[in-house]
Amino acid sequence: MKLLEERIVSEGKVLKGNVLKVNSFLNHQIDVELLNEMGKEFARLYKDESINKILTIEASGIGIACIAAQYFDCPVVFAKKSKTTNIGSDFYCVDIESYTHNTTNKVIVSKEFLNENDRVLVIDDFLANGCALRGLCKLIKDAGATLVGCGIAIEKGFQPGGKELRAQGIRVESLAIVESMNDDGTIVFG
Amino acid sequence: MKLLEERIVSEGKVLKGNVLKVNSFLNHQIDVELLNEMGKEFARLYKDESINKILTIEASGIGIACIAAQYFDCPVVFAKKSKTTNIGSDFYCVDIESYTHNTTNKVIVSKEFLNENDRVLVIDDFLANGCALRGLCKLIKDAGATLVGCGIAIEKGFQPGGKELRAQGIRVESLAIVESMNDDGTIVFG
Repeated sequence: MKLLEERIVSEGKVLKGNVLKVNSFLNHQIDVELLNEMGKEFARLYKDESINKILTIEASGIGIACIAAQYFDCPVVFAKKSKTTNIGSDFYCVDIESYTHNTTNKVIVSKEFLNENDRVLVIDDFLANGCALRGLCKLIKDAGATLVGCGIAIEKGFQPGGKELRAQGIRVESLAIVESMNDDGTIVFG
Repeated sequence: MKLLEERIVSEGKVLKGNVLKVNSFLNHQIDVELLNEMGKEFARLYKDESINKILTIEASGIGIACIAAQYFDCPVVFAKKSKTTNIGSDFYCVDIESYTHNTTNKVIVSKEFLNENDRVLVIDDFLANGCALRGLCKLIKDAGATLVGCGIAIEKGFQPGGKELRAQGIRVESLAIVESMNDDGTIVFG
């Protein structure tokens, strides 16, 4: 998606350790107009899929998911990072590693809000190693729901997450795929 | 706001310790259509205020803020719960207690995204003791920005936060004010 690529080039910051900061329009400050264009694009890509639920994970995915949901006429469910280790039986639960923070979070979704009647689109801001996405896909499987596909804002094509998920037959649509980036700020898209 | 009060009555769950769960439409699953009606109402209430930024805090506030921002044509900034204690000088920082989780979080906003030219509306899902809102107001003050007011989905009128903030001259608009709630599920609005 050209509009998103342009914003990444003009405002993204390449930091050490393959970190791409897009704090000015996606991860801290949010450009809602851009999110609307992204939402329309997800809706175009998945228009024949009868999606009735969008699943994302707190926190950065929530804004993208909510704006996109307007074009699908469906609710959003966001998976929560649980503070307690004792989850109980009312939730689906999965451990998700965070690449950025080098931690593992217990992530939960209430059984009330994900079930076998759901045709689910997973939305998230970044796809790199795929830990978050794999976790969300597992929650959908555990709930007996149908995973229609994933809608990602920015995929790091030089990290293995996207390739691995697609190799499993999962549809992954990324609006911008960064194939390489350098410390001097050069970003090449796929 | 009648629509929101009706949803609270039909789907809200009153738990011990004055907890009101609205997980089915606001805090875990999100009804984006309802959020749109709430956004329109915030826009009506603050229409003459030239708001150019909405400030919220992760995670539950983000969806409400993003949908509302569409009616203000302005970006959203969400304050982040910091994982590190060593914040550096690029951020405004405040300690915010969590009533629900009995913890204190260091909450930060990058100096890039909040400054003296901003006329800010603070949006959040709940107002009870007012810890989060007081913290966000302090961040705005530290940035030299103008706090226009607060837009809250659900205020617990029987807890002191709203009263205290209004006594300081801060405009607080809550779409539903719960005056009392009982363990039997009865909810009375103000």
